[in-house]
Amino acid sequence: MRILSGIQPSGNVHIGNYFGMMRPAVELQEKGETFLFIADYHALTTNPDPGLLRQRTFDLATDFIACGLDPAKTVFFRQSDIRQVTELTWILSCITPVGLLERCHSFKDKISHGISPNHGLFSYPVLMAADILLYGSNLVPVGKDQKQHIEVARDIAIKFNNIYGEILTIPEPLIKEDVAVIPGTDGQKMSKSYGNTIEIFGNTKDIDKKIMGIVTDSKTLEEPKSPETCPVFAIYRLFANQNQIDAMREKYLAGGFGYGHAKKELVAIFNEYFKPFREKRNELSRDRAYIESVLETGAGKASETAKKTMKKVREAVGL
Amino acid sequence: MRILSGIQPSGNVHIGNYFGMMRPAVELQEKGETFLFIADYHALTTNPDPGLLRQRTFDLATDFIACGLDPAKTVFFRQSDIRQVTELTWILSCITPVGLLERCHSFKDKISHGISPNHGLFSYPVLMAADILLYGSNLVPVGKDQKQHIEVARDIAIKFNNIYGEILTIPEPLIKEDVAVIPGTDGQKMSKSYGNTIEIFGNTKDIDKKIMGIVTDSKTLEEPKSPETCPVFAIYRLFANQNQIDAMREKYLAGGFGYGHAKKELVAIFNEYFKPFREKRNELSRDRAYIESVLETGAGKASETAKKTMKKVREAVGL
Repeated sequence: MRILSGIQPSGNVHIGNYFGMMRPAVELQEKGETFLFIADYHALTTNPDPGLLRQRTFDLATDFIACGLDPAKTVFFRQSDIRQVTELTWILSCITPVGLLERCHSFKDKISHGISPNHGLFSYPVLMAADILLYGSNLVPVGKDQKQHIEVARDIAIKFNNIYGEILTIPEPLIKEDVAVIPGTDGQKMSKSYGNTIEIFGNTKDIDKKIMGIVTDSKTLEEPKSPETCPVFAIYRLFANQNQIDAMREKYLAGGFGYGHAKKELVAIFNEYFKPFREKRNELSRDRAYIESVLETGAGKASETAKKTMKKVREAVGL
Repeated sequence: MRILSGIQPSGNVHIGNYFGMMRPAVELQEKGETFLFIADYHALTTNPDPGLLRQRTFDLATDFIACGLDPAKTVFFRQSDIRQVTELTWILSCITPVGLLERCHSFKDKISHGISPNHGLFSYPVLMAADILLYGSNLVPVGKDQKQHIEVARDIAIKFNNIYGEILTIPEPLIKEDVAVIPGTDGQKMSKSYGNTIEIFGNTKDIDKKIMGIVTDSKTLEEPKSPETCPVFAIYRLFANQNQIDAMREKYLAGGFGYGHAKKELVAIFNEYFKPFREKRNELSRDRAYIESVLETGAGKASETAKKTMKKVREAVGL
């Protein structure tokens, strides 16, 4: 049972990233043979600054290891270290109907958001299919909004096998349970594009300040408050155990407990939760060579699988 | 001055192929540093039978060497032996506007001919741009109908350099002088899709028969004939020197010279012209290992250039 995940390096990780994909990826390493890659080829579709892309790729690798990724359990690598994925992308392109890509939500969404479409954005799902199929992945954990991409990968794989024989493993999506939407500092969904994120690593004073600045309603200290609509409470419960959550809820409902108090408790539990990860990250950041060696070892393992797949694929299509 | 050409392996070469691209490619090797590749990745866009693709790739290599290609002068290789070209295709895709590809004639033409478009066909010009730019080509010989693809490659290269610095060599098209249209056995332009081709290699009796079967008008033996509208004459002049052409023209105009006579003279001059190539091809066909070694040596040389380009490109984009 091979489980594959890929994540774009998009900058400082925030708690939305952590609960949405980092923690789930780390948990998966107990459940099967996990492959996890940093999708730097995919990142090129947004034309990032080159130095920033390189830095973010390295940082994301460091963050993952700090947050519990075990390179002995997970094959952890940079997408662009395995160039065969672009060769497979070409080969799969030749059996992928243009119409299938035109129907993909992510492309349509980007156009509707006024992003001038480049051909990389259009081809995005074919590269994703190549990622999945190159490593013979059985399961691909995705949110509901990404399910279509797995369907595209399945369609392509099934078509390939129909034409050329049973070469590719047909992947299944592993739909992640609905994670409660994590609110940002303005109460909207936490997202870099809204500028409302709370980072995990970095200057802790700045992070504490962000938490203290979470926008709440204007109830006075004395008034009872609604835990279910409060972003401070919503974030608090991500870190707390059931007893802590119940106790906090009571304080909200009782009144005489201000948002400032709630935020201070959030700062405390937040910092306690991430303390070991931050310590680990500090250590790791002093050992660039170690991070590089982890990615190289991962690439070596991924490459073995990639070579086997490509040998069969090239033979099948007549190269 | 590096000159690059690529040719799809599309089956037995005919005299349209020979005069349209094989002989020009062989002549070029005296004029600069020539790279010539067999475009098997591009061939996949038409979903050929795998065994046939492999055979045709090998046959085309043999044909070229038989027709005078000198592996010591030309870097001669299989496109798919240099996988970096697919990596460069991905990277270039990320700066190629979808609209640029939608405007390409070749894609529009294929759709208008009812060919169900696959994404490979759509991406065709990006792979072609990658071929050209990977090898730092200065000149790319093309017919007028292919000029647009070179313009696409130039547009992409200029855009890349604007964003990332002066990395890629901007290619120029070398527009081939108008080769007189070579008529097929039915008088239409010679083309595999019309089934009117005259092959160079293969069963010479069958080929002679094809020549004897060229469709002419129904003038009697006695009547004077029009050399300028006769396909037999049009093909004859490809092989003849000026004296021979003049003599043949006189016979046409004088009358008392039948099409059967003209065809016999064509068979003779045709077979004389291709005799050394056919002998060479017979020799080569007994030495599969030699052809393979030529392609491997070519791939080795092409790979050196490809690696240098990709090192700069990857560095520039942040991989």
